[in-house]
Amino acid sequence: MALKFTKMHGLGNDFVVIDGVRQSVSLTPEKVRHIADRHFGIGCDQVLVVEAPINSNADFRYRIFNADGGEVAQCGNGARCFAQFVHDHGMCDKSEIVVDTEAGQLCLLLRDNGLVTVNMGVPRHAPAEIPLDIPDEAVLYEVMVGGNPRPFGAVSMGNPHAVLKVGDVDRAPVETVGPLLENHPIFPQRANIGFVQIINRHHIRLRVFERGSGETLACGSGACAATVVGIEQGDLSSPVQVDLPGGSLNITWEGRGRPVFMTGPAVRVFEGEIEL
Amino acid sequence: MALKFTKMHGLGNDFVVIDGVRQSVSLTPEKVRHIADRHFGIGCDQVLVVEAPINSNADFRYRIFNADGGEVAQCGNGARCFAQFVHDHGMCDKSEIVVDTEAGQLCLLLRDNGLVTVNMGVPRHAPAEIPLDIPDEAVLYEVMVGGNPRPFGAVSMGNPHAVLKVGDVDRAPVETVGPLLENHPIFPQRANIGFVQIINRHHIRLRVFERGSGETLACGSGACAATVVGIEQGDLSSPVQVDLPGGSLNITWEGRGRPVFMTGPAVRVFEGEIEL
Repeated sequence: MALKFTKMHGLGNDFVVIDGVRQSVSLTPEKVRHIADRHFGIGCDQVLVVEAPINSNADFRYRIFNADGGEVAQCGNGARCFAQFVHDHGMCDKSEIVVDTEAGQLCLLLRDNGLVTVNMGVPRHAPAEIPLDIPDEAVLYEVMVGGNPRPFGAVSMGNPHAVLKVGDVDRAPVETVGPLLENHPIFPQRANIGFVQIINRHHIRLRVFERGSGETLACGSGACAATVVGIEQGDLSSPVQVDLPGGSLNITWEGRGRPVFMTGPAVRVFEGEIEL
Repeated sequence: MALKFTKMHGLGNDFVVIDGVRQSVSLTPEKVRHIADRHFGIGCDQVLVVEAPINSNADFRYRIFNADGGEVAQCGNGARCFAQFVHDHGMCDKSEIVVDTEAGQLCLLLRDNGLVTVNMGVPRHAPAEIPLDIPDEAVLYEVMVGGNPRPFGAVSMGNPHAVLKVGDVDRAPVETVGPLLENHPIFPQRANIGFVQIINRHHIRLRVFERGSGETLACGSGACAATVVGIEQGDLSSPVQVDLPGGSLNITWEGRGRPVFMTGPAVRVFEGEIEL
């Protein structure tokens, strides 16, 4: 079948976006792996598919497939591209778009300036909900990594995050401490590890070692986690500009029980058509 | 400007191919780097541009830009894709296509079975022409690498190649010996380092550590060099099937003073259009 697609990226986290409403699309894991292959296929981190909504109050169903062919529940950078895609392709003229995902409904807000805001949900702090194998909740935990004590904050943004403060993010031990802490028994489902340098109360620099992927250009949920942990520890105040290797996100959070909002770019790179 | 392009690959060595005859194309190094970027652009190893010929006996001019924006003289896997592209796009109905390149003229032959044959030129054996800093020509040289003697054959295919025989290419020390030998003072312009496992007189397995790039999926000139060296050393007879990590090439060589012919696939992956 000939399939039209759009290549997009959010801070370098890149996507092949497919209109599955006006095209008949049947993706097998094998086809997804071929699409995602950077030498033999189109190349992307994830494949995003626009489908008709499941629930009557939603505008679309937002499906996400990893490069290994497996379907996953969420991707914040992808959500921004999804919203920009349905807008650019005339599939929806609303500025507030409700989508059904594997992890529930998501609300996407198209801004006038070409940016998109995503409601990233309410962070969870209780150790059992992260999950973190420590009995009592605290704003600062500590664990031994490679023979050194490493203090960290922890939060769930739907996935587990640990956040470590560093003096200079360019010299942070991302490649060494990242995988050791990701796989530490204190995190029964492993964790994404963020290394944050505080510039001021509204501005941080961040590098994230993503669970199962290694360091990435821009981890949206990691930016939210770093902001939440920084506010909880008294270092930051909302809104917070988060500078990642791939670019900047703006994160707002009004405190416990409230959702985190992430605002950032969604860039269309090119239009294509492939025979699958 | 809106630019139409085709994404292609030859054994996983991948290309953005642009028709610069029927489209007005002006590529700056910055635009090439953007096109080649795998997260923020289209993504490829090289950008190939079809232009009108310089000489009256040629059909096209074949230009090659590396991902870093610099123009280079030759790419065998790219030449096959170039020939398939002008054929697929109805730019030429000949089965034998003559192209002007920075390194002189090249003759490309479209086969009925979807394969393309490229005349890769006459190999050069004299040490000064490789260049190899050893006074006398031999079929087998030896150098100390990491404290061990490493016997190798050497040839120029327009670029310098060293070829080492190994028992099992899967366990060859490509990542350790490759960079050490690439940068050994015996090669004043460095060298591509091939590790070859002989299956029989007409069949080898090959991995290549490419000069300036590291190990690649498929080095066309490396396949030619391994075949020429194997024939010179008495291990191989033309034709030779060369299995590379990205797939197989067929190499023929009739001996000293004669050109090497490389036959292999050229695959169209998708059609696209990008605003530059």
